[in-house]
This record gives sequence, structure tokens and C-alpha cells, in this order.
Amino acid sequence: MQVLILGSNSATPAYGRFPTSQVVTVKEQNYLVDCGEGAQMRMQDFKVKRSRINHVFISHMHGDHYFGLIGFLNSLALNGRNKELHLFCPEALKAIIEIQLMWELPYKIIYHFLKEEAVHVLLDNNQVQVIAFPVAHSIPTHGFLFIEKERKRVLLPEELRKYEVPKYFYSRLAEGESYTQKNGEVIENEWVTAAGKKEKKYAYTADSAPHEKYEAIIKEVDLLYHESTYTELHADKAIERGHCTASQAAQVAKKAHVKQLIIGHFSSRYEEVDVMLKEAQLVFPNTQLALEGCVFEV
Amino acid sequence: MQVLILGSNSATPAYGRFPTSQVVTVKEQNYLVDCGEGAQMRMQDFKVKRSRINHVFISHMHGDHYFGLIGFLNSLALNGRNKELHLFCPEALKAIIEIQLMWELPYKIIYHFLKEEAVHVLLDNNQVQVIAFPVAHSIPTHGFLFIEKERKRVLLPEELRKYEVPKYFYSRLAEGESYTQKNGEVIENEWVTAAGKKEKKYAYTADSAPHEKYEAIIKEVDLLYHESTYTELHADKAIERGHCTASQAAQVAKKAHVKQLIIGHFSSRYEEVDVMLKEAQLVFPNTQLALEGCVFEV
Repeated sequence: MQVLILGSNSATPAYGRFPTSQVVTVKEQNYLVDCGEGAQMRMQDFKVKRSRINHVFISHMHGDHYFGLIGFLNSLALNGRNKELHLFCPEALKAIIEIQLMWELPYKIIYHFLKEEAVHVLLDNNQVQVIAFPVAHSIPTHGFLFIEKERKRVLLPEELRKYEVPKYFYSRLAEGESYTQKNGEVIENEWVTAAGKKEKKYAYTADSAPHEKYEAIIKEVDLLYHESTYTELHADKAIERGHCTASQAAQVAKKAHVKQLIIGHFSSRYEEVDVMLKEAQLVFPNTQLALEGCVFEV
Repeated sequence: MQVLILGSNSATPAYGRFPTSQVVTVKEQNYLVDCGEGAQMRMQDFKVKRSRINHVFISHMHGDHYFGLIGFLNSLALNGRNKELHLFCPEALKAIIEIQLMWELPYKIIYHFLKEEAVHVLLDNNQVQVIAFPVAHSIPTHGFLFIEKERKRVLLPEELRKYEVPKYFYSRLAEGESYTQKNGEVIENEWVTAAGKKEKKYAYTADSAPHEKYEAIIKEVDLLYHESTYTELHADKAIERGHCTASQAAQVAKKAHVKQLIIGHFSSRYEEVDVMLKEAQLVFPNTQLALEGCVFEV
């Protein structure tokens, strides 16, 4: 699993930083998380394969998280997409999309509305499980937890020889199947394989003030993205607007015992954002800036 | 008067080219013409003063001409604008803007709806007159003619001495006023001044196939922007979609005896657009590519 940052700024673009958007890639599938204005241009800049995006997640109804969606959807259509697209979003977004579609798209958008104030599973396939969870912003907002499924099981050569499992069945063993011999005897999967790599977790907390409501769900994730709109100097604005300072974001990471923290959603008032990195690292050393074009391996 | 290109591509962004948007500047006022996605980022790139934009003109309801508007309007608000903004557009755009405004803007948008199939004056102030005219696209679409008002009258020093006009009145003479002496005798303006520079005209024909309906209004303009979505190789697509080839755009310019032609709205199928310049220049030599960041003096 990896995370590519397409946009790192807050409410308005500034200093070459675009509004919020990210691509989470799991086993060659791209999952688009928020879609601020210009996200589709950034996809071109960073060579994101749009045909591999089948799922889009919009955290809340502030424009810096969705104004780029209509252009993206339109471009998919003009580029001949016919595969359906799943859109996980607040219910209000549907009417906004539909009023702007002046023609019938050649593909279907399947809407899945986020449930306010509820933790719920949005998606569960062979590669990944995605869970929405409420955060603490000025309007209803969800974060998203990506859980990369356990990797394929590891084959144990000596055991395979001992139980005489035929080679053609090895790939099915790796997927977790057991083998049934001609005489009907079952060779259980766990006799001849070991667990694959542990599942990995990425949590995206969207726009939020620090709040205990999402502490449990982000606990011990491998990578946490947390907004960090302000420096400590403007902590009053963070409180007023349902946002976070860099130091507060780091405190969230520390309390949740996450492995790594990335911070973004920087206010347009800052030309340089290094001071936020410093403030965060004082509290939680394993912090990076979620700058555009950066890729974080989970 | 000058024209700055913010976006030069057609339906979708490609090869670093953004969708259509331009800024026409007349006497330090900026007039925004169409507003494709990312226009506000390009304004930052090219240092356009957004506070000097009080009038926005949207030619038609294809997204590549307005998807950037909501983000622009939102950013104006977040940057503290309180001056009213005049928006000249198809009526359908109002509902699209309003459904996306999740808060009350600190400034007022004054809507002026374009009249289908009618040539009509949109704006007439001391600096400029702007006229909308219908063009020939797949949906109702208007072009815009900008007429920079006649410059200040030129003072004639010898005549001023002869008629003994006091110096404090010179600026009013330049504006066209006549001077009344203490004895009631009037010194007519044209006795002591000469005409300023001739008015200048810029025509923006938006998206259009070549058509006689707008021939008269663009006749002999100083600068013509005409779309040129395709090369001759794809002339069939131009016809099918209500667009133009570079060569056709040049024929329009030639027939209308304009002074200079700029071409844009390039299809995403072309990485290089020089071939369009060559095709156009064969027909109308004084042609330039309307590439992003280019400024054309009128």
C-alpha cells in the first residue's frame, strides 16, 4: 500500500500548493481520497493511472475537498470510460454532481452515502477494507481507514514435499485453500503454509480538531495522515475553525502510538511550512510533510 | 487593453495545458473571460490581481469553461472580498453556483443572464464596452467583444495659450469637457484638443464552428481570439462537434480583415500544437498561439 499526495493545501490554493487530494494504491488499484480543484492536473503531473481508479472517497462538503471532482468525472467520460465508478460521499454531493452533468455519462456512478456520526465499513474486497469514521470538524466529516489485507500465505517447501501436494495447487494454497487428496483426505492449509505479512493500516483523518472520538480507530496504524492547518502561533484559529496545529496533530499521533505521521492541509497564510514539521517533530519525531508528489509506503 | 491567457486547452486538461480562461485588462481593471478548472491557480502563477476583477463573463455551459468558477468565487470570499461581483453568464449557471455555496458569501454576486441568439451590450463604463454575440456551437454559446473606449483627448499647447485656459482645467479638457470663461464665453473642447487614440477592439469567439452569424461583429477588430480545436487531419471531428480547425479559424480572421489572430482551445489529442500555428499562418500570417502565460497587447 502506498499514499501519493496530489494536494496539500487548505481552503484555497497558494504557493503552488493545491487543495486536498490523495491517491491510495493497493495492489495496482488506485483509491482517490478527496478531490480538490486541480486534482486531475496533479494526476497527470504524477502519472496516476485514472483507469485504475474505481473508488472515490469524499470526506466532507467543503469545496477544497471536492471542487475538482466534477472535472475529474467529466474527463473520465471524455476519455471513454465505461466501467462503473463507486463514489463514497455525503448525500449532498449527488445533486451537485448531477446538476453539472450536461450529458449522460458513458459510465455509471454508484453512490454510497456516508452515515453521519457512524463508524461503518465502506468497502471490503480481496485487497483492502475501507472504514469511514466521524472526526471533529465544523461540518459532518469522515476520516477513512484503509486496511490492506493480509498478504498471501507463505509456502513451506519441506511440508509440501512431506504431504505430496501437487505443484499446480501451490497458488491456491497461497490464497489460503486446503488441498483434498484423491482418497478424500484433507491436507489443511496451515499444515503446509505460514501466515503472510501482517495487514497494514493507513488512516486519513480529513479535516479535524483533535478529538477522542477517533482515537480508538487510528490506534497503532502504520501511517497516519493528520491535518495541520496552523502553527502554534495561530492555535486560536485552529480551535475556532475545527482545525489543528502541527503540534496537536503530533500529540494525536503520539497518543495513538502510530508508527509514522504525515501532516498536510496547510493554511494559505504560510509560504513556508517547515516550521510545522519542526513543531510536530518536537512531539512526534517520525513525522513528514505530506507535500505534493510525495509517496509514502505503508 | 491586453489579453492574458490562463488556459489554452479544450475539454480536458492535458500536457500541462489547462482548460479555457483569459483575463482582459483595460485601464487596470481585470475582466475574467471563462473560468475553466485551475484558473485561480494560473492567476497566482501569472500574478493576476484578483481584487481588480469585478466582472466575469462565462460563454457557455460546457464545464471546461466554468468548472473553475466555484473555486475562484470561494477563494475571493476566503480572502475577504466584500465588493460586489458582476457575473455575465447563461441562466443555468446560477443554480450550479448556489447549490455549492455552503455559506453566505461576504460579497454579492450580481447575475446578468446572457440572451440566447441576441447581440446585446453587457457593460458600458468609462473604460470599456462589452458586447455579447451568439456563435455556432453545439449548445447556446456567446462570444464577447471588448471595445476599449477612445483614449483621453490630446491637449494642444499653442491653442491652450491662445485661449488662455487655466492649467487646473487641463485634466477636464482631456476628458472632453469644454471650458467656460468668467465672462460666460465657452471655449469649445475641440478648439484646444485633438482626438486621442482610436478605440481598440478585442473579440473572443469562445467555442464555435465558423459561421456567418458573427462575421459582422468581429469585422476589422484589432485582435481576434478564435478557437482552433483540431488540425486539418481531424476536420471531420470539428464539424461533428461544433468546433474549428486552425485553418478554418484563419479563414474567419482573413474574411473579417482582423489585424491579428490568436488561436487556442487545443484538443487533448495533441501534445504539440505547432502544426496548428503552421496551418493557420498559411491562410492568415499574423497568427499566434494563445498559450498559457502569453500576453497580447491590443
